[in-house]
Amino acid sequence: MQNAIVGILMGSDSDLPVMRKCSEILKNFGIPYEMKVLSAHRTPDETIKYTEDAKNNGIEVLIAAAGGAAHLPGVIAAKTTLPVIGVPMPSSLMNGLDSLLSIVQMPKGIPVATVGVGNAENAALLAIRILALKYPDIQTKLESFIEEQRKKVLSIKIEE
Amino acid sequence: MQNAIVGILMGSDSDLPVMRKCSEILKNFGIPYEMKVLSAHRTPDETIKYTEDAKNNGIEVLIAAAGGAAHLPGVIAAKTTLPVIGVPMPSSLMNGLDSLLSIVQMPKGIPVATVGVGNAENAALLAIRILALKYPDIQTKLESFIEEQRKKVLSIKIEE
Amino acid sequence: MQNAIVGILMGSDSDLPVMRKCSEILKNFGIPYEMKVLSAHRTPDETIKYTEDAKNNGIEVLIAAAGGAAHLPGVIAAKTTLPVIGVPMPSSLMNGLDSLLSIVQMPKGIPVATVGVGNAENAALLAIRILALKYPDIQTKLESFIEEQRKKVLSIKIEE
Amino acid sequence: MQNAIVGILMGSDSDLPVMRKCSEILKNFGIPYEMKVLSAHRTPDETIKYTEDAKNNGIEVLIAAAGGAAHLPGVIAAKTTLPVIGVPMPSSLMNGLDSLLSIVQMPKGIPVATVGVGNAENAALLAIRILALKYPDIQTKLESFIEEQRKKVLSIKIEE
Amino acid sequence: MQNAIVGILMGSDSDLPVMRKCSEILKNFGIPYEMKVLSAHRTPDETIKYTEDAKNNGIEVLIAAAGGAAHLPGVIAAKTTLPVIGVPMPSSLMNGLDSLLSIVQMPKGIPVATVGVGNAENAALLAIRILALKYPDIQTKLESFIEEQRKKVLSIKIEE
Amino acid sequence: MQNAIVGILMGSDSDLPVMRKCSEILKNFGIPYEMKVLSAHRTPDETIKYTEDAKNNGIEVLIAAAGGAAHLPGVIAAKTTLPVIGVPMPSSLMNGLDSLLSIVQMPKGIPVATVGVGNAENAALLAIRILALKYPDIQTKLESFIEEQRKKVLSIKIEE
Amino acid sequence: MQNAIVGILMGSDSDLPVMRKCSEILKNFGIPYEMKVLSAHRTPDETIKYTEDAKNNGIEVLIAAAGGAAHLPGVIAAKTTLPVIGVPMPSSLMNGLDSLLSIVQMPKGIPVATVGVGNAENAALLAIRILALKYPDIQTKLESFIEEQRKKVLSIKIEE
Amino acid sequence: MQNAIVGILMGSDSDLPVMRKCSEILKNFGIPYEMKVLSAHRTPDETIKYTEDAKNNGIEVLIAAAGGAAHLPGVIAAKTTLPVIGVPMPSSLMNGLDSLLSIVQMPKGIPVATVGVGNAENAALLAIRILALKYPDIQTKLESFIEEQRKKVLSIKIEE
Repeated sequence: MQNAIVGILMGSDSDLPVMRKCSEILKNFGIPYEMKVLSAHRTPDETIKYTEDAKNNGIEVLIAAAGGAAHLPGVIAAKTTLPVIGVPMPSSLMNGLDSLLSIVQMPKGIPVATVGVGNAENAALLAIRILALKYPDIQTKLESFIEEQRKKVLSIKIEE
Repeated sequence: MQNAIVGILMGSDSDLPVMRKCSEILKNFGIPYEMKVLSAHRTPDETIKYTEDAKNNGIEVLIAAAGGAAHLPGVIAAKTTLPVIGVPMPSSLMNGLDSLLSIVQMPKGIPVATVGVGNAENAALLAIRILALKYPDIQTKLESFIEEQRKKVLSIKIEE
Repeated sequence: MQNAIVGILMGSDSDLPVMRKCSEILKNFGIPYEMKVLSAHRTPDETIKYTEDAKNNGIEVLIAAAGGAAHLPGVIAAKTTLPVIGVPMPSSLMNGLDSLLSIVQMPKGIPVATVGVGNAENAALLAIRILALKYPDIQTKLESFIEEQRKKVLSIKIEE
Repeated sequence: MQNAIVGILMGSDSDLPVMRKCSEILKNFGIPYEMKVLSAHRTPDETIKYTEDAKNNGIEVLIAAAGGAAHLPGVIAAKTTLPVIGVPMPSSLMNGLDSLLSIVQMPKGIPVATVGVGNAENAALLAIRILALKYPDIQTKLESFIEEQRKKVLSIKIEE
Repeated sequence: MQNAIVGILMGSDSDLPVMRKCSEILKNFGIPYEMKVLSAHRTPDETIKYTEDAKNNGIEVLIAAAGGAAHLPGVIAAKTTLPVIGVPMPSSLMNGLDSLLSIVQMPKGIPVATVGVGNAENAALLAIRILALKYPDIQTKLESFIEEQRKKVLSIKIEE
Repeated sequence: MQNAIVGILMGSDSDLPVMRKCSEILKNFGIPYEMKVLSAHRTPDETIKYTEDAKNNGIEVLIAAAGGAAHLPGVIAAKTTLPVIGVPMPSSLMNGLDSLLSIVQMPKGIPVATVGVGNAENAALLAIRILALKYPDIQTKLESFIEEQRKKVLSIKIEE
Repeated sequence: MQNAIVGILMGSDSDLPVMRKCSEILKNFGIPYEMKVLSAHRTPDETIKYTEDAKNNGIEVLIAAAGGAAHLPGVIAAKTTLPVIGVPMPSSLMNGLDSLLSIVQMPKGIPVATVGVGNAENAALLAIRILALKYPDIQTKLESFIEEQRKKVLSIKIEE
Repeated sequence: MQNAIVGILMGSDSDLPVMRKCSEILKNFGIPYEMKVLSAHRTPDETIKYTEDAKNNGIEVLIAAAGGAAHLPGVIAAKTTLPVIGVPMPSSLMNGLDSLLSIVQMPKGIPVATVGVGNAENAALLAIRILALKYPDIQTKLESFIEEQRKKVLSIKIEE
């Protein structure tokens, strides 16, 4: 695999089944990525180190999954100028509404691009829309993806 | 002004005072933008036309503000491959939580990068992080902005 | 079947089990209908085309199911003068409260007649109340339906 | 004024400022209506009597405003086969979300067509979409209304 | 059984498993009651008739269970001067918070004594506290019940 | 004044303006009451002492107002067999929904009869419905109150 | 076992499976504790007695679990000057958000240190952070615990 | 002033008016403290540095105020073994419920002792209860404070 241009972080490997849906889309688009477990609270130093180095290591977009207090995307966004996409994880208290609010409500100055709860696919596709501005082959694949998606819906026939 | 590379849409001019905070940041960064009132419900045809043409007209990022049912960012995202940033507007029912949920919860396949309710500044700064991947001068300005922001916090002294 | 006078739309065939409860009531009342999968986001052009043509094709009431961001009923209502009934689908985040708010909170000027979350039966019965204003045989059947419903409740005996 | 074909009810005259926005739209469309204060809880007998007689008195659509426990639209819908439109009133507890849920969540069998909280305009416009199925002149006026609305949005120019 | 002094109503026999917990407590206290399925929406006339006659038939407290729009307790309270206890039923949308708000938020003038969602036991025990003011033997049984309850908690031993 | 038969408690005199609406209704009905500031948290011993003595002192119904954590009604209900009516106070966090839930959700065994947020009038009227079971003159006054209330609604005329 | 320095209370033994996670951490740290079922509502006198004596009996931190109306931590905090940690239990109505609000929203003057819903581990670890201020060996164990936790996260490898 | 033993942090000086209520109570108790503006997002490095050094600098309890995404208390708790008290700030979206959830819902392993929204007084009093375990004079003052508080409530007389 080439050097990763997308970094996917999550605070616990319990988030992995959801985030595999993110990495699979990147893989289908042929976009090199790396995926790591790093916690804002249990491994704060390593999380900060990874983020500080990300840009120099060739990363162009960061994707971070988090649930509950959900600090990871914001902690990362504070330590990089790269676009950071936050994926709120479903939670037992509020099905992820709490995670969503902890991620999307960043103070003015430090944005996190937030997608729907558990919607790891859209995190990948948002990274792809961003990268497509720079990489024409990603743009081409994105257009095919949308066309296939359209055809899939139109092919559904409801039987009486 | 050069050709706009950021398009800012809103469904009603009542959103303008909030969205001016978005355009001001772009202006401070020297990023050419255009700002329009177009409604997903009251001018659906014109909204679709604008979006279909955006990429060919040189737009690289779209920002859309909406409140309540808040369909505008999603309607736009369905008609372009550009990154779309959604800004939920405060609302009388739920202070904008309803707007946020209508925007962030896009179905799989069509992402909208969502920021906090009324946080038009972060919509601009997210667009800037995206554009900084391509434009080195925007990257430089972004780094200065973050440094100034840091200094501003550190300069606050609490008097007893 | 005669030409449909009720059009039932949904964004995904995962909504079909719920919406069958809508079409079954229409069938029981002998009201011709058609049911289609069309997505506001994945097939925007086909959705708009269907809606623009609905009135000329003899449709008198449109029923649209949607969940999450739930844009379909509003997108349709923006492209027709027919009464549009929105059916919010249950969702994983808020059991459908989010879908309800995305549907019912249309801006002034473009109403969507909203029923309870997942209450596809009431969407059918609301269409029937509307059509009963014009079609005396539907009015007669509606009165019988309500009388039967009354008798069903009264027939329940609680055993000690 | 001709015999009313739309009946507008509200439980308290504190709802009148909101519901005037409903009656004004009907007046602008030249649709005869009547507006009354009748409470599901404080005048239950008179409310039921009014509703039982509504159809025979020429009413074709009923609009009911209610807040808090918000029983009025449902109580009416239980005593008529006419389409009933419910307008949730803003409330001090939840800004009207409580009113909305009390109105929209009718049990299967007795629908209430619900609009957004305080959106009395859309209640009128929904009644108009329903009546337009039967009355061609109302249909004509509805099309003009939508066209004017479109033009109004397009006329907005944002000044730099 | 003697003439009932407590009337228990519910809109659907799906509420019966919950409400049996109410009637069982009354039975244990030796308080005569009757339990009926009557719907505010599907059998409005019979519901009103039952309530109008309740006092003359010897009923002293009415208990009504309802879910969703949950109009039954309020509709009853509007037609009697007896104390009415409302039991919000769990619901699919909000686990019964919606039912609770539809019941507890009665307008000024017509109170419904509301207990917790699905807490049919407490509805019985509240009726018992009310009746104990008049019937000394119920007071005696209530005191025993509370003492037994106390002993039950104190008897629990946590093993290491 | 005769010996009080209704005791009204509140945790802070900031609740007094709301609870005066409760005591005024009792006064209008000629029902002797007493009103005290006692806090479950700041004066736990005095609160318990008052409640333990209430029945022997001739109190028949207790009304307790509380906001936020809102423990007062429940703490009282645990120390008496009298019916306890809880009045949730409006709060800054959730307008009183939090207070409502802290009051209404008592564990099985210890009921609190809960009314709407800030609805001190209905607390008085619920006490009155309870006392009317025992005191025929209160019953007579209650019937007059309801009739007056009815007439007041019917006297409202909407002017065009 | 030495004299307990942490007292763990819960209102019902249904809370025991959750609270065992609290006592297990204390056991692992070698901190003597005692665990009791005491209800604020069903055994108010015994609860107060236990709390009044706690300090003299050598208790230094109290932990109380409660759900729904969730009065236990607040009732205890009103009767001691020891730090009280509240653990909101999951509930059927709101998954524990109601419990959390009933616990955390104590009036000014009587604090309860609140942890996340069902997060009995963090209640133990908060007690440990408090006790570590006084007991150097607990401080040493706390530092080891955090280091182990860090290593555990870093040891996770995501396989492709 | 002696060396501070309580550190009070906030992300913005807009939190100062609320947090002054915290520092005033500490001052009244004669407890040395320091108060600083440090942002988890705008000054991440300085925030971490301060926290890493806190214990060695003599700090025994940390209090952190934060609103919205509200990461500050959690970010601090990840970098110290001292007890950390979180004060959720009122917010425009949800009056601080969002802040509360972002603070209280820390993952297992890293607790934050959370108080009510905006309840800076209770943050101080919780710090005081913790410090009173070690410092007998603080314990004495705490007992006086509680006694004064009791007397203040009992001195309130309600006039008719």
